[in-house]
Amino acid sequence: MMLFDISEYKERVTKTKERMNREGIEVLLVGDPANMNYLTGYDAWSFYVPQLVILGITEDEPMWVGRHMDINGAKMVTWLKEENIREYSDDYVQSSIKHPMDFVSNILKEKGWAKSVIGVDMDQYYTTPLSVAKLREGLPNAVFKDTTLLVNMVRLIKSEKEIDYMKRAARIVEAAMQVAIECIKVGVRQCDAVADIYHAQISGTPEFGGNYTALSPALIVSTGKGVLAPHLPWSDRKFQKDDEIFLELAGCYKRYHAPMCRTVYLGNPPDKLKELAKVVMEGFDKTFGFVKPGVRCEEVEQTWRKAIASSGVVKEDRIGYSIGVGYPPDWGEHTVSMRPGDKTILEPNMTFHLLTVIWEEGYGFGVSEGIRVTANGCETLANFPRRLFVK
Amino acid sequence: MMLFDISEYKERVTKTKERMNREGIEVLLVGDPANMNYLTGYDAWSFYVPQLVILGITEDEPMWVGRHMDINGAKMVTWLKEENIREYSDDYVQSSIKHPMDFVSNILKEKGWAKSVIGVDMDQYYTTPLSVAKLREGLPNAVFKDTTLLVNMVRLIKSEKEIDYMKRAARIVEAAMQVAIECIKVGVRQCDAVADIYHAQISGTPEFGGNYTALSPALIVSTGKGVLAPHLPWSDRKFQKDDEIFLELAGCYKRYHAPMCRTVYLGNPPDKLKELAKVVMEGFDKTFGFVKPGVRCEEVEQTWRKAIASSGVVKEDRIGYSIGVGYPPDWGEHTVSMRPGDKTILEPNMTFHLLTVIWEEGYGFGVSEGIRVTANGCETLANFPRRLFVK
Repeated sequence: MMLFDISEYKERVTKTKERMNREGIEVLLVGDPANMNYLTGYDAWSFYVPQLVILGITEDEPMWVGRHMDINGAKMVTWLKEENIREYSDDYVQSSIKHPMDFVSNILKEKGWAKSVIGVDMDQYYTTPLSVAKLREGLPNAVFKDTTLLVNMVRLIKSEKEIDYMKRAARIVEAAMQVAIECIKVGVRQCDAVADIYHAQISGTPEFGGNYTALSPALIVSTGKGVLAPHLPWSDRKFQKDDEIFLELAGCYKRYHAPMCRTVYLGNPPDKLKELAKVVMEGFDKTFGFVKPGVRCEEVEQTWRKAIASSGVVKEDRIGYSIGVGYPPDWGEHTVSMRPGDKTILEPNMTFHLLTVIWEEGYGFGVSEGIRVTANGCETLANFPRRLFVK
Repeated sequence: MMLFDISEYKERVTKTKERMNREGIEVLLVGDPANMNYLTGYDAWSFYVPQLVILGITEDEPMWVGRHMDINGAKMVTWLKEENIREYSDDYVQSSIKHPMDFVSNILKEKGWAKSVIGVDMDQYYTTPLSVAKLREGLPNAVFKDTTLLVNMVRLIKSEKEIDYMKRAARIVEAAMQVAIECIKVGVRQCDAVADIYHAQISGTPEFGGNYTALSPALIVSTGKGVLAPHLPWSDRKFQKDDEIFLELAGCYKRYHAPMCRTVYLGNPPDKLKELAKVVMEGFDKTFGFVKPGVRCEEVEQTWRKAIASSGVVKEDRIGYSIGVGYPPDWGEHTVSMRPGDKTILEPNMTFHLLTVIWEEGYGFGVSEGIRVTANGCETLANFPRRLFVK
């Protein structure tokens, strides 16, 4: 059931240990489910309870620690030896008396790491402040350092197999976007359209199935009042004439994501909107055409800003971010962004969500693609028309 | 667009301030999206960036702080005055230079709370250790206390309107479970069955639509090898004869959940499984029949344990937990559990997921209901047959 050869997992571990070494980390505690997956293959919706991957700099393989009921899953899908899969009992869960990190502290003591320099992801979702406090209590002689994004940075450049999985995810998002554009029409309830979108995302293609995406499908409906509220949930209101709908979807294959945004207008779009769509799509094309190995992320954003300058629009937003493995609540890798100040130099097999949107008072337009930096330029993961869809 | 009358929100705030008062908290920082929703009405998939509700003990209403792009949403769906809706700019997002909690610290200083006793949820998903460290840095004269679950405890007893929303969620889970049992059969891919389940969850009923559930639909397939791996993702493998499928689904209406578990067998179930199903269902009925105001949670679990004792099975697991408003990754409220040691006394309008499962080597059976404690006993939220579904 393993998704990658053991050699690929071992290479990831080696690269992680190189970074640990550079930062003086002896033991790394990895709580981000995407990072846990990346290092061990573990993939389960169990991140609502504390769980960690522990990597000692002197060890050949990491250790998985989780809840009793999840140990069978860990044995089935990870490449780890059984001795490196450890479980805490169910009475640790949501208890006011004992905390799973007491259990983790004991493991670290048993391994002789009570006085080590220990790295913890201090700014991700699933390692709480109390968890860190419990570790400090349990290991008073250890030195704790913030290693947020250490593994995320290793994830930045994808292997060929990872690219293959992302392209499968792209097949799924093509299908889901096609369904979305077909089913969104005047008189249809928003929830029924989103139901069809979910169906397409999960069913996938005849060759392979899909899975839940790290962000739920977003369907942003502007009713001409000019207010954009991007993350509100869909409702059961019926689509009406002159609704404008901004769609942000992804396909997910084995936790790898391919996102895509498109804009739909129900009725005759105002001339201003058609002009804006032209500006954004030309801007997207210029920006996309600029992406290649050797350029800096901030230069990509500059290219976009210059491309849209003639329209009088001034923006300094982020227009892209690194993507790959992801779990709720976000498919972004939280590392590299295409925005002012990000001096990361692009390399082949980096993958991004390139997202260009202009939303003015009353109307707007956005388009995006999952992209891969190639040897000489870049390519989209998916193949889907970029235009204002008018229905 | 508000889901509850302002008077209901104000009552929630009053109850929260009573608890703050008892615990000596002057300012409460609420980062759990379910608690933010409960106090303000805010409901958006924006919890992947830092956001907080701030409640000062001397204030009449809370303040919402979030990202620039989410402020329109906050204005549309909360009951708060505009002056109590604050935004940080986009360059705070996933930045190595500035952190949204610097912005929050400045608000607290502006309000004169730099030396206050400040409560923070230290053990929930969306307030990170770094966020707390930044707050301590920005407010060196404040005293920080852990107030995890303070608002969750206020949520424990539901209002009539909340019960109404949970019953709507139950209509949705009835429809989704019906679809699940219909579509799971030999030769169908797992992903296609889950796609149909999602469709039913999101489409909802002809009267009202559904929304994403805080846990993804879980479909646990045991292929007779006796290994239960509860939280692994579904695959695109086709169902086969003698697969046993344990389903854990919910309906979600306006973020209120009604969960339900059922078990399906494809083929002729072994006699042992049929006997086990009988034991579990009788145990469920006895346990359910015992639930009423005045009894303690641990007594509910004891009732279950005694009911199954004749079968020789010994278990001391949690068999229920409080439910209500929820966001990924969990629909549980993390407060009260039906397990040994939980001495909480049941009161009318508490709501639980009552979940009885026995999984032995090779076969198993589980059944669950969302339940509400009534004036004299309890009732299920949904109305759906409890049996071993054989296909």
